[in-house]
This record gives sequence, structure tokens and C-alpha cells, in this order.
Amino acid sequence: MSKEISSRSQDYSQWYNDLVIKGGLADHSEVKGCMVIKPYGFALWEKMRDQLDRMFKDTGHVNAYFPLFIPKSFLSREAAHVEGFAKECAVVTHYRLMKDPNGDGVVVDPSAKLEEELIVRPTSETIIWNTYRDWIRSYRDLPLLINQWANVVRWEMRTRLFLRTTEFLWQEGHTAHATAVEAIAETRQMLDIYASFAEEYMALPVIRGVKTPNERFAGAVDTYCIEALMQDGKALQAGTSHFLGQNFAKAFEVKFSDKNNQLDYVWATSWGVSTRLIGGLVMAHGDDDGLILPPRIAPLQVVIVPIYKGEDRKDLLDARGRELAGQLKAAGVSVKFDDNDNNRPGFKFAEYELKGVPVRIAMGLRDLDNNSVEVVRRDTKEKQNRSADGLVEYVRELLEEIQQSMYNKALVYRDQHITRADSLEEFERLLDEKGGFILAHWDGTAETEEAIKEKTKATIRCIPLDSVEEDGKCIFTGRPSRQRVLFARAY
Amino acid sequence: MSKEISSRSQDYSQWYNDLVIKGGLADHSEVKGCMVIKPYGFALWEKMRDQLDRMFKDTGHVNAYFPLFIPKSFLSREAAHVEGFAKECAVVTHYRLMKDPNGDGVVVDPSAKLEEELIVRPTSETIIWNTYRDWIRSYRDLPLLINQWANVVRWEMRTRLFLRTTEFLWQEGHTAHATAVEAIAETRQMLDIYASFAEEYMALPVIRGVKTPNERFAGAVDTYCIEALMQDGKALQAGTSHFLGQNFAKAFEVKFSDKNNQLDYVWATSWGVSTRLIGGLVMAHGDDDGLILPPRIAPLQVVIVPIYKGEDRKDLLDARGRELAGQLKAAGVSVKFDDNDNNRPGFKFAEYELKGVPVRIAMGLRDLDNNSVEVVRRDTKEKQNRSADGLVEYVRELLEEIQQSMYNKALVYRDQHITRADSLEEFERLLDEKGGFILAHWDGTAETEEAIKEKTKATIRCIPLDSVEEDGKCIFTGRPSRQRVLFARAY
Repeated sequence: MSKEISSRSQDYSQWYNDLVIKGGLADHSEVKGCMVIKPYGFALWEKMRDQLDRMFKDTGHVNAYFPLFIPKSFLSREAAHVEGFAKECAVVTHYRLMKDPNGDGVVVDPSAKLEEELIVRPTSETIIWNTYRDWIRSYRDLPLLINQWANVVRWEMRTRLFLRTTEFLWQEGHTAHATAVEAIAETRQMLDIYASFAEEYMALPVIRGVKTPNERFAGAVDTYCIEALMQDGKALQAGTSHFLGQNFAKAFEVKFSDKNNQLDYVWATSWGVSTRLIGGLVMAHGDDDGLILPPRIAPLQVVIVPIYKGEDRKDLLDARGRELAGQLKAAGVSVKFDDNDNNRPGFKFAEYELKGVPVRIAMGLRDLDNNSVEVVRRDTKEKQNRSADGLVEYVRELLEEIQQSMYNKALVYRDQHITRADSLEEFERLLDEKGGFILAHWDGTAETEEAIKEKTKATIRCIPLDSVEEDGKCIFTGRPSRQRVLFARAY
Repeated sequence: MSKEISSRSQDYSQWYNDLVIKGGLADHSEVKGCMVIKPYGFALWEKMRDQLDRMFKDTGHVNAYFPLFIPKSFLSREAAHVEGFAKECAVVTHYRLMKDPNGDGVVVDPSAKLEEELIVRPTSETIIWNTYRDWIRSYRDLPLLINQWANVVRWEMRTRLFLRTTEFLWQEGHTAHATAVEAIAETRQMLDIYASFAEEYMALPVIRGVKTPNERFAGAVDTYCIEALMQDGKALQAGTSHFLGQNFAKAFEVKFSDKNNQLDYVWATSWGVSTRLIGGLVMAHGDDDGLILPPRIAPLQVVIVPIYKGEDRKDLLDARGRELAGQLKAAGVSVKFDDNDNNRPGFKFAEYELKGVPVRIAMGLRDLDNNSVEVVRRDTKEKQNRSADGLVEYVRELLEEIQQSMYNKALVYRDQHITRADSLEEFERLLDEKGGFILAHWDGTAETEEAIKEKTKATIRCIPLDSVEEDGKCIFTGRPSRQRVLFARAY
């Protein structure tokens, strides 16, 4: 192989970086904490974005676009919000450069100082609710169901490609409703859409839950989330959906008149997923040979590699390869016929394994004679020699089978890594030896939550929506508890 | 009508703003110079973006994403580039806020000052070519055909919705080639794609040309452009495609080894169109009743409005309306059946005229009896009563006819407004009395170009690609000229 990849078991963190960089998804940039999303990574993001966008539109949402910059004073309007974001804001203070009077380059022009500094949006609740004030007058203007695809910036000291970057791409939904009931229903609907997307398209099983007050979005009444499990036993928050109550409506004075002509503040939700999902995809499915991408979001589903022996019947092989590619394409499969002469088949095989292309088809001279091809699936590496007849239908079924099989494998792993712990000792041993999610009793206080995190590095990922009431004792304080919550060490 | 629109002839500028704001395309924001793109405007941008994206991908381009921030020192690497952009840069100087020690809000944390300031990208040549240095080694890595959809910021003192805003959305293609010939061919190919898009989708005839050195992109060897004409006789630059030579490769040390193992600098192009196109669309086609959108990019192509008389056969009208909407949708037409009870048909008619929906279908009780509908096209306001039989096919043809007819109308107007002038007096009279493009001789110097601009407010839009050599005398200096160039007052 041309590109050495670290082994997952020996250096998980380096393995992840190798898959991202050598797999062609992203690269570091010279701007601290910002990444370059490379063409293959961006093609993957486009597939994910387009599917999410369809799901948003099918549920009545429309897209819009709000300014990148937020006046500094807007942040302060909602007390919890500014508390949450002030420490990681990129601040624009000037709007012009000038020639350096003492040198060759350019310097900030001190006379071009902004009266009020602008924040590069870390999230857009404030600028959007400031706009909604002009858009909402009566209940007839509600609900307002708007989404935005955008870049956001949160200044991070320690960054990792996709998982935590200073700038990232995301979507942020911001909806306005006449009643709390409607807004809560919207919050839950979007959580369900995220869960469906993760499970049906990313082959990533997730646990739906609600965050503890400690872990809530800054300004939310309730934060719902989906939590996924990575192959190193750590959890990844894969999407959040917030019920914002009337907090932002009050901060920005957004009122509506209801059917009885009574004025009330508007109810809000916001919800988002980001390019972070790509990091989750890499870590949940990859192996020591590279990425493994689920067929439904893979930029390239099938690659066809011809195996030439010199010029012997090269034309015929090319013709057969192109014909098959054309048939697959006509059947809605994304496919590439790779007849690049610069690289040998073995190199190509390794390259497409690294890139996680779900199905590889190889055809050589003997295949020409036998009317057969070799089909290899990326997830299990299983090889089959098959007749070229009926191949298109077979490949389509195989892609679906790979999709399901990847989900099932991740689900089995995830379910094997949800463990109950009834003492702090057991809890810590599980974290160190097995990893994964741990269901344990907690006394419900922020202090205990913080103390457990301090001692074990595990956080409460969520209170699962499907958890059942059960009397127990907090693993840390021994105080009574009515319900287990979901702990894990997390990204 | 509920929303008063200024008349085009009385106040063109206010008329434009009314169409943009009341037509639901965009709104001012509280951030100086930044706009909010409203859902209807964003849906229009999505249609335009998706079509352009298809055209880019069909010609072998892929999308990627580069950082929003550019280190200040990068800008200085290319001398002309920094000269062009330094005066309009938003500068990030700090990365944290803190509680105001003297008050309620937050202030910039002085201890969180960046060592090197970051510029919010006004365009991405510098950060991209800095990245290409790592991506390009040999001729086998070329051509590199990458496009990016992104937001950019150029600090503008005088802004107008869509036409000139501090932040705008655009695409920027950045390609790398082994030879100048290839790079020039790419530059011209993209110009042709922009022209096809403008003419075939936006129904906007354009003139292809090359800019004078004065009007070149900062850092380009040659800037090609498409120029369109608005209804007030002013020109609008609708897209540019730049041949960058080896300027950026030299500034960022990007070399490749050719087939003979010789090192050489890489050849570059860049090309872009932006949300500014939406401003051009509004100004080229709108009338005193509102927007007129070309069917191929209209977010909504057909609206069906039922005309009830109380409850009389309301169910039947609804059923027929929905059935027709379903048939149109199945035929690939985007359609809305508007049975909103809050608004009367007259209000709806005006609203959809304002929004420029190409075709309106109204159906009342008499239509039920006669198996007919009323069809009104937005561009000419022509009304027809038609049998409901064969309506889907008729509507599809009508949409195509509207598309062609809008283009033809704009073309006739444009061609009537290309005039030759052979003296400065004639030139000025034409500008003041007729407007439009003026073909005139120019002596080829930047000084004369500047002097004409100073005196007449007209600029050289381009040297048209199809212009023929012709001996003449510069209208300003009387010096000899071999070719007429295209002047206009412009946005």
C-alpha cells in the first residue's frame, strides 16, 4: 500500500487522523483550528446535506440566510446565551487595512475601528430573533419554520479534524410557534429526523435523550440530543434539538397577537447538526484499511477496475467495463470505471479500500472468457465470482445489504457496550476496561454530576427518552434516585 | 393591493427596493451592509445554485471548502491582490469576550489578542493557493478543478440589497493547470458557462468580453466578464472569469514537475458569480406590479387559486384544484394550490404577481360547469380561458414559451440599447437621453479611460469578444484606435 495507516488498536487517535487525511476527507490549514474540507470529504457532506435538506423540506421547513456577523450587544441580551458563548468568539474590530508605514506588508488601519465590535456567529439565535421581531405580528405568521446552512466559528483551543474545529459547517433550524406545546412537538420531531438520518443513512445507531441542565444549550429550556458510540468506546453527541421556551422572544421583544387578540411572547426551537457527523461516521465504521462508507451516503458506491495483461484484449475489457458502468449508472448507482494506466490494480484496490467505496468490481481476461466478474464488498471484504448476467440487480441488492449490515454491526457493538453499574467502583472499572455507555443512578444534582466528571472523566450524555423509572441509589452520593441516566466518556 | 410598489418610471431605485423587500427576496439587517436573504429569495438562489452546480460538475469540477479566515500576511504575497482588497477587509483581532468590568454587557478581552490578525475572506485565491502547494507535485495532479460555494465579506460604504452588500454568497472556482493554453481555455469555458446560464436560465442576454487592465481583478492577467443591461439603461457585471497566469503560483511557491521532470510554476484561473445575479434578475425583468421570474429558475412556477362563493361546491373546487396540482407536480412542474381562507382571490392575484410566479390558474364555479380554467401568464398578463382537458401539456409549453419570450424581450431591449457614438458630445447625449451600451473608439490608455469616467460616469464595461477591427479615433483624445469598446454607466 502506498499510504500507511496506523492501526486502530495501537493508536486510535492517529488512526482517525490517517483515515481523515489519507482518505481524502480533510486537511489541516494554516489557520489555527480551521480545516480544509477536501473534494471527497465535501462530496460526502453534500450527500448528507442533501438528504437532511429533503427531510427538512418534507416537514415544511424552508431555507433562508442571515448575516455572518452579530453585533456584540446582541449576545448579551440573553443572559445564559452570552455566558455560554462569550469565551469562544472571534471578534471583528476593524474594517480596513493599510500599507505598513514601517515595512512591506499591511497593517490594520487604526482609523477604521468599528463603533461596535462584530462577532462572527457561533450560532444565530440572536440575529435571527432580532429579525423575527419584524416578521411576526399575529398567529397567522406562525409557525415560522426556517433553516439555514452556514459556517459558524467557535474559538477552540484544542481542535481535531471534523470533531472540533474553530470553523465548521452546519445547519441551524430556528422555528417560532404560537404555543409551548407546538414548539415542544417541533423540538421532538427534529430529534426524530436526526435519529432517522443517523440510523437509516449513516448506519449509526443512536440513543435519544434529554440533557441534564448542566449540559443544556446556552439559552435553552430543554436540550434533546442523539448520542452515538464510537469504536473506542467513547460517545459522540451527533445532533441536538432545543426547546428555547420564550427566552429569545423575551430577549428580543418578539410578541404576536393570538386569535383572541391577546399579545404573548413567541415560543422557539433551534436544532442543528454539523460536519462533526463526518468524524462520527469515520470512527464508527472504519477499519485498519481505511474508511467504510454506508452506500446511501457514499459519494461513490461502486468502482470497476479492469485487470489488463499488457494490450491483450484491452479494448474489449474497456468496452465491457464501460458498458457495465453505464448500466449501473442508468440504475441510479454512482459508479466509476477506473482505467487509469498510471496505477496498477493492487494500488487501486488499496486506494478504494482506503476511501471506503462500498463495492469493488474487478474484471480480467479470464472473466471475459467466463462472462464473470469479481465482486468485493468493502465492509466484510467478502469476495464473490459472479456471472455478469443480472449483475446490476445484484449490485443494487448488495448495496442495500451492506447498508443494513453496517447498521446491524454497529448496533450489536453499541448494545454490547451499554452496561449497568451500581457502584462507583464498578462504574470506574467499566469505563477503564470496557468503555461504552454506562447506565447508572444519579441523585439529580449538578454538584454530583460535576464531581463524577472530575473523578472519572465521564459525563452524563443524556437521560434516555425510553428509560423506565426504577428506584435506586446514586453511585456517588448514595442518595435516592428514580431513574438511571446514561454516562460515557465522550468526544 | 396590500403592498404599494413605487413606479419604475418615477423612482427606479425605490421600485427596485420595493420588489426585493415586498417581493420577499431579502431584507436589511441590523448589521450595517449585511442583508437577510428571506425564504423566497433563498429558494430562488437555490434554483440558480443547483443549476450552476450541475453545469460545473458536468465540466469536471468538484466542490471543496476552505477556511473563512485568511492570515493577514497571505494577502500581501501578491502585490496587486493586496492593493485591490486591503481597503475593504473585515479584520478579526481577538478571540474572546469577557464581562464588562464597568457594566452589564461584554467587552473584548484584551488578553485574547491574536498574534497575527485574520481577514474574513473577500475572495480565496491566497488561502487556496497556499493549500495547493501541498496538493500539487507533478503534472499527474493537474488539472485541479475545484469550486467552492461560500460567503465572502468586502466592506462596502454604500450598499444596496443584492447588488452590493458587505457579506454576499457566491461560488468561486479555483483551477490549476500545467500550461497557459489550458488555463486560458478553462477561463473561456467558464465564461461561456456563465453566459449560457444567464441566457438560458435567467433569460438575461449578456455580452462577453474582456476587461481593460484598469478593471481587471486584483492579481489577474486577464479578466473576462459577462455584461447585462438593466431596464434603466445601466449595465450590470454579471460574472467574471480570470486568467491568473502564474501570479498566485509564484506568490505561494506552487510548482509542479512536468512530463520531462522539469519544474515550473502552475497556471491558474478563478471565476465567480454571486447573489448579485438576483439583483440583475429583478432589474432586468420586473414591472410595476412586481417581480417577473423566468420559469426555469422560479421557485414556484404555477399557482392555482380557487374562487369560492361561500360554501357552494367548495369541496368540488378543492378536489379539482388539488387534482390539477397533483397532475402538474407529476409532470415536473412546481405548483401550489392556494386554498388559504384568510385572503380573497384579488389579494392572492396581486401577491403572486408581486412574487413573479410565471403562471396563475384560477378556477371558479362557472369553470366547474364548463370544465374550464382561467390561465394568466405573468410576463404579458395575457388571459385565456381554456378547457381543463390537456391542461398539463399546455402549461408545460406555456412555461417554455414564457422563458423564451422573456429572453427575447430582454434581447430586443438590449439590442435597441447598443448605440455607436463617434464624438464625446454624442456619447454624453446618448448616456443622458437613451442610456444603454455605447460602442465607441478609445485610445487604449488608462488615463483616457479614467478621464472619460470622471467626466461622464461611464466606464468601459469590456472589449467585446466578437468585436471587429475598425479604424477610428478616440472620442476623447482623437488619437487613433483600432477597435470600438463597450461603455456604459453601471451598477
